[in-house]
Amino acid sequence: MLDSKTTLYGVIGNPIAHSLSPKLHNWMIKFFGLNAVYVAFCVKTEELRSCIEGVKALEIGGLNVTIPHKEKVLGYVDEKSETVVRMGACNTLQNKNGRVCAHVTDPFGFTESLGERKDCFAGAHVILLGAGGAARSVAFALSQLGVKKLYTTDILFDRALNLSHLAVKELKLQECEVIEYGDPAINDAILDSTIVINASPAGMHPNTDCPVADMSAFSERHFVYDLVYNPEKTQFLSHAQSKGASVQNGLDMLILQGLASLRIWEEKEFQLDRPALQEVRNVLNNELKNP
Amino acid sequence: MLDSKTTLYGVIGNPIAHSLSPKLHNWMIKFFGLNAVYVAFCVKTEELRSCIEGVKALEIGGLNVTIPHKEKVLGYVDEKSETVVRMGACNTLQNKNGRVCAHVTDPFGFTESLGERKDCFAGAHVILLGAGGAARSVAFALSQLGVKKLYTTDILFDRALNLSHLAVKELKLQECEVIEYGDPAINDAILDSTIVINASPAGMHPNTDCPVADMSAFSERHFVYDLVYNPEKTQFLSHAQSKGASVQNGLDMLILQGLASLRIWEEKEFQLDRPALQEVRNVLNNELKNP
Repeated sequence: MLDSKTTLYGVIGNPIAHSLSPKLHNWMIKFFGLNAVYVAFCVKTEELRSCIEGVKALEIGGLNVTIPHKEKVLGYVDEKSETVVRMGACNTLQNKNGRVCAHVTDPFGFTESLGERKDCFAGAHVILLGAGGAARSVAFALSQLGVKKLYTTDILFDRALNLSHLAVKELKLQECEVIEYGDPAINDAILDSTIVINASPAGMHPNTDCPVADMSAFSERHFVYDLVYNPEKTQFLSHAQSKGASVQNGLDMLILQGLASLRIWEEKEFQLDRPALQEVRNVLNNELKNP
Repeated sequence: MLDSKTTLYGVIGNPIAHSLSPKLHNWMIKFFGLNAVYVAFCVKTEELRSCIEGVKALEIGGLNVTIPHKEKVLGYVDEKSETVVRMGACNTLQNKNGRVCAHVTDPFGFTESLGERKDCFAGAHVILLGAGGAARSVAFALSQLGVKKLYTTDILFDRALNLSHLAVKELKLQECEVIEYGDPAINDAILDSTIVINASPAGMHPNTDCPVADMSAFSERHFVYDLVYNPEKTQFLSHAQSKGASVQNGLDMLILQGLASLRIWEEKEFQLDRPALQEVRNVLNNELKNP
């Protein structure tokens, strides 16, 4: 297509040269037959104001926002969704007739990626590894899924503590417990839980770290979710699976938060059925293997 | 292609929804195997400063500039080529590591579009119909081609006078004469000239006006060039051809000014051979017929 009526979308971040979002969104744009194109913009933090002014001046349709801009960009937007206000972070900017509105689709992406497993979360005890921005999005989703008890842990103890406070005060999770990073007490928490989620960058290519040193407490009782999708199966997921656990990586979360962004920009309720989802997974996994 | 390393180019103007530049440039991008994409941006005059700041913040590779921004955008750029300084207008912005440099490729586009006919211009008497921005670009090319005498005319007499002054003082054309719009003296000028160029919008779709009311003085002695390319053959070119004149429309000028912009952005000496030029002409003519 690509003519003078083509709408421009994109993602801002720094660095951005390894983002999968252009592949994902251009695949969806083609799949849904839209006259649009999606590119990656490397934006420095001190250029965020100019970036948002440029979005308005150039009438760019919308942007995704990734690390390190998810919080700071909120200083330059005109409107924020309720969830963005509560989370203090966004991943989607919508340019609505020259007003830039911030949305966040990461919690939705996490929840929808669970498929039928969603039902196992109500009343569950869950361990969340890592307490950065991604973990905060997951915590929001967990509170909506009706999780009963949340264990948090992080290399930075204060960050785990903060997430725990947020979960209790803001998200109304019934019980929260902070575990110090590397504390063997994590094994008791694993035995007490049925769901373990890695929202830390441990295990992300090219690193092969495992966010849990001792995997002995894992069993077929567990569902283990790793937000990392590169490699397709991390050491963490491999080890958990070898102990009988069900496992899932973060690729569907990436796809479904992107789908939700596109819905906001185009104001249409696009759906990806099972074969379409498998096709786009293949496209992205191929991209990861042959960058 | 389209991945996180894709370079973004575009055109700014207002209105922009009928620009052929996205079709042209995306064709060239594919033809030359570049990882880039080109879109049209509708930019309001009061947003030009934000637009240029946005180009830097978003690291956009380069922009074409069209009506009404070719002069005003110069207030916001960091550097200007020598020809831009002399013309007071640009059509190409290059983002060179955060510095925006203004270039103009229209005179080159005109000259190169002449092909072997270039040689007929040295020492020739030429009539230039219209005295706006496009005519100014043509006048620059004419001075470099060694034209001896230039007749200028425009609906706005002062504009024709100004162009005439520019041609004598700045462009060092030997002789210039201004003809009042609609003055029958145009026939004597046509008889005295071998080349007649329409750089006014007369005859542009959907209008079917002819920039010269009385075509009786045209003959096989004349080469008639119409910068208008929509329709492919204007009434002006049809009438001139029926009197035996050789004719050419402005499509090759559009293509070749675009090629020159791409050379500046990518810093490569791209060439379009004859079959490639014919292919892109067909693409653009099809677009004009089926918008």
